[in-house]
Amino acid sequence: MTDRPAHYSAAGVDLEAADEVLDSIRGEVGATLNQNVLSGVGSYGGIVRLPEGMTNPVLVSSVDSVGTKVSIASAYGDFSTVGKDLVNHCVNDILCTGATPLLFVDYIAHSDFSSDETASAINGVAAACKDLSIPLVAGETAQLPGVYQAREFDLVGTVVGVLEEENLILGSKIAVGDVVIAVPSNGIHTNGLSLARKVFSDYKLDFVFPELGRPLGAELLAIHRCYLNDLLPFLPIVHGLAHITGGGIWDNIPRILPKGTCVNLEWGSWQVPPIFHLIQGLGDISFRELLRVFNMGIGMVVICDKTHADQIIRSIPGASLIGEVHTGTPDAPQVTVRR
Amino acid sequence: MTDRPAHYSAAGVDLEAADEVLDSIRGEVGATLNQNVLSGVGSYGGIVRLPEGMTNPVLVSSVDSVGTKVSIASAYGDFSTVGKDLVNHCVNDILCTGATPLLFVDYIAHSDFSSDETASAINGVAAACKDLSIPLVAGETAQLPGVYQAREFDLVGTVVGVLEEENLILGSKIAVGDVVIAVPSNGIHTNGLSLARKVFSDYKLDFVFPELGRPLGAELLAIHRCYLNDLLPFLPIVHGLAHITGGGIWDNIPRILPKGTCVNLEWGSWQVPPIFHLIQGLGDISFRELLRVFNMGIGMVVICDKTHADQIIRSIPGASLIGEVHTGTPDAPQVTVRR
Repeated sequence: MTDRPAHYSAAGVDLEAADEVLDSIRGEVGATLNQNVLSGVGSYGGIVRLPEGMTNPVLVSSVDSVGTKVSIASAYGDFSTVGKDLVNHCVNDILCTGATPLLFVDYIAHSDFSSDETASAINGVAAACKDLSIPLVAGETAQLPGVYQAREFDLVGTVVGVLEEENLILGSKIAVGDVVIAVPSNGIHTNGLSLARKVFSDYKLDFVFPELGRPLGAELLAIHRCYLNDLLPFLPIVHGLAHITGGGIWDNIPRILPKGTCVNLEWGSWQVPPIFHLIQGLGDISFRELLRVFNMGIGMVVICDKTHADQIIRSIPGASLIGEVHTGTPDAPQVTVRR
Repeated sequence: MTDRPAHYSAAGVDLEAADEVLDSIRGEVGATLNQNVLSGVGSYGGIVRLPEGMTNPVLVSSVDSVGTKVSIASAYGDFSTVGKDLVNHCVNDILCTGATPLLFVDYIAHSDFSSDETASAINGVAAACKDLSIPLVAGETAQLPGVYQAREFDLVGTVVGVLEEENLILGSKIAVGDVVIAVPSNGIHTNGLSLARKVFSDYKLDFVFPELGRPLGAELLAIHRCYLNDLLPFLPIVHGLAHITGGGIWDNIPRILPKGTCVNLEWGSWQVPPIFHLIQGLGDISFRELLRVFNMGIGMVVICDKTHADQIIRSIPGASLIGEVHTGTPDAPQVTVRR
């Protein structure tokens, strides 16, 4: 009986390391808080006031991880960026309803990370929250021996946003004749990483493809763009917003289309970043599959009245007109390929 | 090049299985929604109205997983209960501030689960939400090949609650002379499972210890009690609530104590469930360590004025007076052991 564990650390859980992580994130997390936050790190819940003067506030919440981008971060030895992907991804999701973020909470779990590695990942979350003025009001760090593979982890975030109910963007204003605008992605973002890793499995993460001009690892870890500041001025006039994530344009555009409408997009009307050409070349993946797994250069789709198109396209670098709303069933959009 | 994956499934991600999961949870998740929810499964965010007629609403949010209880669920082949642990744990946390739940979101990730197993876990979350009338407004299912060990998964939840700012329970009303009441746990809940698994590593999960009267796996999976309904009537009169989770009474009671106060507890003044005696006997773990890793029978600590003690103890089965608030520093509580 005396060879049994006398301390929790013998069971693979290091409570002192957890305290070290707390010490290393307190500053960054604390810097995200504002005068509306009534709690700090370590309390039973993050407590936040609603913005003053709202009449019919509705909350919009979304939860996500960054998929197997975490594995690339670990293999490449850079834990500082995935937290930014996480925040930006979640914020883009609720932005599609017109909501702006009110608070963020994060969860990180692993089996064998050092305090520094864990803190680096959380501080990435905090840095993105600070950039976007979102208080990071609660978080959990879990060491789960036996659940995660060696040197692997998961990072999960939930954003809660708020807006007046009358300002909800639910796609109901989308009408035949509206235009479809692509706001560019800056690469893979956070969807399709498992397939990308498979495609690049013969290459080391520090290999530099000439068409990428930087190490493969850096390209795959490029931070998911946040569209909050780009689109905030246009929320009152847009008819629909679709964040292009898992399922690509095939699945994401139909999510917001009202009955009786469909969209036609023209291949070549938006820029496809070099990483996708490379994947297409190496992976022998069908065109349809590429557009289902990857964003293929479209980070966000904006649908608006024709009269507002120029204003939006001029304001957002790289934005382009890619199609129009037609009468039809809201199945996967038609993409016309002209060669 | 032709041996490269032509489909995402070759990279270990099964998009069809994801659709099957969605089909299997739609009913249970849908049953949690109410007239204040303006969105459904599949939209970009869960959209929820605030309760009507609030003057100064504050939101309280908390995120958690159920630790390595997920590993026991997988080994025991019962995925239906851990979702209930998750909801109850999160709800108890925000209850400590006086908040009642407004919405819940969940995240589940694995590398190799069947659609049925994944759906069973999510439906557990939904069932607990339905019991407590909490809309489950958003969720994410991620298949992350290579991140999770075979037959392992993680389950993460975020609860958002709401209350009037003036009703926040922040511990500031706790005063010398207040009494400390234990509300019983029904076993390990969701903390200390890694150590428990280590202690029981020589026993199969279907082994029945006479003192437990049921298989070890069932005992370890006993669902974390939710204290919402027990404590709701007393929120206006309690001075402090501490959910006894990781860190046990040593860490959790001081979280709510104001400066200049401490508590003394008397060992023997509350019931310690048989599982903890068994762990103590098998594991050769110090008394101090036991009280740090496990709840040792105390699910929630209530601190209130002496005059309200009887009312609370009579109303909640198993509740008992375990100590008093004294002048001192809010370090770990003093536990007096009388033999």
